[in-house]
Amino acid sequence: MNDEFPFFKRHPALTYLDSAATSQKPQSVIDAVVAYYTEDNANVHRGLYKLAYNTTETYEAVRAQAARFINALAASQIVFTRSTTDGLNLVASGFGPLVVHAGDEILVSGAEHHSNFIPWQQLAKRTGAKFVVAPVTQAGNTDPAAIGKLLTPRTKILALAQVTNVAGGSVDIRPLADEVHANGGYMVVDGAQAVAHMKVDVQALGADFYAFSGHKMYGPTGIGVLYGRSELLAQMPPVQFGGEMIDEVQDQSATWAEVPLKFEAGTPNIAGVFGLKAALDYVSSLDMAAVADHDHALVTQLRTGLAKIPGITLYGDDQSIGIVSFNLAGVHPHDLATVLDEADIAVRAGHHCAQPLMARLGVPATVRASFGVYNTPQDVAKLIAGVDEARRFFHESD
Amino acid sequence: MNDEFPFFKRHPALTYLDSAATSQKPQSVIDAVVAYYTEDNANVHRGLYKLAYNTTETYEAVRAQAARFINALAASQIVFTRSTTDGLNLVASGFGPLVVHAGDEILVSGAEHHSNFIPWQQLAKRTGAKFVVAPVTQAGNTDPAAIGKLLTPRTKILALAQVTNVAGGSVDIRPLADEVHANGGYMVVDGAQAVAHMKVDVQALGADFYAFSGHKMYGPTGIGVLYGRSELLAQMPPVQFGGEMIDEVQDQSATWAEVPLKFEAGTPNIAGVFGLKAALDYVSSLDMAAVADHDHALVTQLRTGLAKIPGITLYGDDQSIGIVSFNLAGVHPHDLATVLDEADIAVRAGHHCAQPLMARLGVPATVRASFGVYNTPQDVAKLIAGVDEARRFFHESD
Repeated sequence: MNDEFPFFKRHPALTYLDSAATSQKPQSVIDAVVAYYTEDNANVHRGLYKLAYNTTETYEAVRAQAARFINALAASQIVFTRSTTDGLNLVASGFGPLVVHAGDEILVSGAEHHSNFIPWQQLAKRTGAKFVVAPVTQAGNTDPAAIGKLLTPRTKILALAQVTNVAGGSVDIRPLADEVHANGGYMVVDGAQAVAHMKVDVQALGADFYAFSGHKMYGPTGIGVLYGRSELLAQMPPVQFGGEMIDEVQDQSATWAEVPLKFEAGTPNIAGVFGLKAALDYVSSLDMAAVADHDHALVTQLRTGLAKIPGITLYGDDQSIGIVSFNLAGVHPHDLATVLDEADIAVRAGHHCAQPLMARLGVPATVRASFGVYNTPQDVAKLIAGVDEARRFFHESD
Repeated sequence: MNDEFPFFKRHPALTYLDSAATSQKPQSVIDAVVAYYTEDNANVHRGLYKLAYNTTETYEAVRAQAARFINALAASQIVFTRSTTDGLNLVASGFGPLVVHAGDEILVSGAEHHSNFIPWQQLAKRTGAKFVVAPVTQAGNTDPAAIGKLLTPRTKILALAQVTNVAGGSVDIRPLADEVHANGGYMVVDGAQAVAHMKVDVQALGADFYAFSGHKMYGPTGIGVLYGRSELLAQMPPVQFGGEMIDEVQDQSATWAEVPLKFEAGTPNIAGVFGLKAALDYVSSLDMAAVADHDHALVTQLRTGLAKIPGITLYGDDQSIGIVSFNLAGVHPHDLATVLDEADIAVRAGHHCAQPLMARLGVPATVRASFGVYNTPQDVAKLIAGVDEARRFFHESD
């Protein structure tokens, strides 16, 4: 598996356990980006010559492929964005004001990433809506029961991560989507931590909007996907203007292109889209049941091993999807990560862009290990040994 | 020169004359993107391990380099964006509402690209300001005298391209910036067509904001730069939320990181930034006086050659910067471009995202040839011969 990822050839000693921040890239993704620049480099939706025509064809074919990847009904339901964050902000600033008014409610989990939290908090501030943050489970996961209790006929938006980015909990979206729909509200899903780990079906989820990034699913940086239901995208006004997103521009007025082009102002990240194609091919070629087994085995091994180390607090649970967050008593997570780095183990320490969750867990930060398809039991064993070593190091220096 | 651009090895027969839409990339830019993915791939501003630290260091060093490239005072005046369009929209939606109110005026040239036109038109609509579009010269260029006449004490924003994208006219920004400043307004400059063709000095220009793209200056797609004066960026609120753009997030409120990070929500296009570094190196290594001579020689050769063909209308003038737009009587520009494509000549035909200018020129579209450093007199001769051939073809088929 690792043979496909040139990064590991350049870093043979490194144990990379930060794929929830960004994954490494298979050679095929890098090759696709290079191929764009060397063979297909032309702008899209602009030129009439064959090169530009072919590049536009491929660009639009990737849109159709992204639609199939998440079982959207149509390519036109796919907007290319910069990232999950960009997609969620587009929904909050474009669609949000259409349906959220003073006195309405926006509901999120206390386990959300800032990118699926602050856009809604700020939308609530602007509109005079109430921003409701649901309690989380003791493990730091989204609590469906708590969400259910807080859903009201005033809940216009329910915004949840399908897989949370600190405790790694997977949320059963469908029943909550049904509830919010029954109340006349909309279901927005942050799929950043899900798409590399499970087969996603936006129709089965009941998602009205679903956002994900290329770079966390073995694809390029600077490219993301926003799915939206057709009638919602049609209503939603563009939030950026310029380039080919128009139909007709007069001095004092302008009309917009059809969905989805009206949301893609300016030259897009074309190389990113070509690289995303290779990433979609790559993930589509994986046996996702085997990926889930692999994730589960590594999570179980790591949790079991860490649990034996005195002073370890584990967040999440055995069902966490490819993520284990933890702390070591008496040692700041930053210090622990730094010591692990000395042993060539790359884990993330910090608030993981989830300060509201940190407040709920009563900690400033955690250490987080997260897995990609290239991680092995040896990586996990090395991390467990490294943490144990670090514990002794900090203990001796007391 | 062409040896540095692998695209031309793959397309030995193609005459690429659409660099104003997007330029080809030198090998060094492609190598920089590949090197990021194979050697340095980690997220920025998040990890504490050496790999992430080094990647963040490089990312920030490119910011400083971009600042030097346009003679900004400080790296913190540089915001990484997706594109010129993204940068101009950020100014219009973030800074615009701070200074533009009902009864105020926003002034643009009738030669602006949609990306420096519609954001201001829409801002005017939202705020109740007056959107003023200045007449253009007969050649289709921005007319400084017309701009000067329309500048009033109510002009809060003057937004101009430094080099226009249809007629290729270079605008002497400084005197106009001084005038708008004297009236208490702000100067916003679209540098998309300038940075690959001339040395840019934002201080000498008197620009309050200056936006450009990587992909039109031999760099990657999906990455752009927005320069802003420090005190203006400091006042400007973020328009996207999430990730590392925060200082502190509580349930009902959030505070923002310092400039410029508060404007960079979500994982940025890190590979794009690494590629931009190589593009900045590349353009910085060029003798810009020689580039100007080269542009001028090609423009003169093309205009002189086309002028001899019966039925040709030329836009712009001999001072056009690397761009020649034209039409052939009785032939739709799209048809002309298609026939040229059959002869392996890639030119653009259309409204060039400048419909207000097309209306002023009284045409639906033009054909546009635009040059990069790799273009040669042979390319120009081939285009002239191709147009003459096309004229005979369309004439005979009458």
